[in-house]
Amino acid sequence: MRYELYYWPSIQGRGEFVRLALEEGGADYVDVARRGKRGMSAMMKLLESKQLARRPYAPPFLKAGQDIIAQTALILFYLGPPLKLAPRDQAGRLWAHQLQLTVSDLVVHIHDTHHPVSGWLYYEEQKPAAKRRTADFWRYRVPKFLGYFEQVIKRNGGRYAVGRSLTYVDLSLFQIVEGLRYAFPKRMKRFERKVPLLIALHDRVAQRPRIKAYLSSDRRIPFSQWGIYRYFKELDA
Amino acid sequence: MRYELYYWPSIQGRGEFVRLALEEGGADYVDVARRGKRGMSAMMKLLESKQLARRPYAPPFLKAGQDIIAQTALILFYLGPPLKLAPRDQAGRLWAHQLQLTVSDLVVHIHDTHHPVSGWLYYEEQKPAAKRRTADFWRYRVPKFLGYFEQVIKRNGGRYAVGRSLTYVDLSLFQIVEGLRYAFPKRMKRFERKVPLLIALHDRVAQRPRIKAYLSSDRRIPFSQWGIYRYFKELDA
Repeated sequence: MRYELYYWPSIQGRGEFVRLALEEGGADYVDVARRGKRGMSAMMKLLESKQLARRPYAPPFLKAGQDIIAQTALILFYLGPPLKLAPRDQAGRLWAHQLQLTVSDLVVHIHDTHHPVSGWLYYEEQKPAAKRRTADFWRYRVPKFLGYFEQVIKRNGGRYAVGRSLTYVDLSLFQIVEGLRYAFPKRMKRFERKVPLLIALHDRVAQRPRIKAYLSSDRRIPFSQWGIYRYFKELDA
Repeated sequence: MRYELYYWPSIQGRGEFVRLALEEGGADYVDVARRGKRGMSAMMKLLESKQLARRPYAPPFLKAGQDIIAQTALILFYLGPPLKLAPRDQAGRLWAHQLQLTVSDLVVHIHDTHHPVSGWLYYEEQKPAAKRRTADFWRYRVPKFLGYFEQVIKRNGGRYAVGRSLTYVDLSLFQIVEGLRYAFPKRMKRFERKVPLLIALHDRVAQRPRIKAYLSSDRRIPFSQWGIYRYFKELDA
């Protein structure tokens, strides 16, 4: 099966959780919108289609044969079994999906640290609100979310989030740690000692041959000031 | 199967999407935390459990035999087939789930109209930000989200979101309309003419015998100033 991933071509964003799974799973895939203007217009054509009965609301979405699947967590739920990145039993698959949906919730909170008021205003126009949101994010949300994932890993034996081998949830947790380190280097450095299993999981993921190769390739888009994770010195106080 | 729903006892909140499905599906269920202090402490005990291998991150969650399922959209994905509120084919079920995840995204935006900066501040402490967020919500988000659902209904024949009979997605869209009418009566009144199929769907759901009985029972918690939907006159300008 050749997969087609459709996502914004210049940011990691939500698409990155899917890219990591496709890469680790050794999938045959095309990152469509990164193939120049034609790729981008193919994505917009699908998004704005007047015929497509099951049109996605937004990127990322995946085309697999006749199936078009949107929503990051659902794409991973769909890709998990064929890429061998999900448990074999149905209960395990639902549990992995539940964790991934909790990752999605966290991603909204991360994004909103720099854009709490409106996505249609520049960061500079909402700086005081961003500072307050970021303070509460680090005071309440990060300890609760990352503490939760730490406990999930612990109760599962200490090496993986779900089951006895790597799943897409582990890849997503890797990406959460990577992103928080980019956006909040100082805060994250102080916090990491509280979630040693999560950090160890991150480090193991980074060392996996396919992930390592991917991260050093030009298929991995660098972090920037245009994704979920953005670095502003004053928010990292 | 007797289901146990665990959710905050005094608000509709995210639990309401599940309650509507349980009611329309004629399920045998207990709304655990609404059974007085003992119910509430049963919920907190599960949430804070030190043993439970697959502890939920937050309410709502559902107990069905040995299964504990959290995340609103996942609970509905799980309940859809046994309650006959999901399509029979797997592709249809994934599509319904995809739509429900888009409803979940919309719910975050609705909530954040009144609490954009922080859930740990009172509304009164973030009023200017709430005004701006609400303006953009009605300018960009509502037309895009509700316009999308309108089109989904239209491409599916005009009566339902998915397939040829009622699904949990239709019940959730009903709840979206109800809530927006409560929180933004004037704005919603002006907007409704743009989404006639969605409004007609809402009205048909409201007339279904089980939903009608539920809405007029004391099992339906009234809207208030403590849920996703809150009414502030100045936000409804």
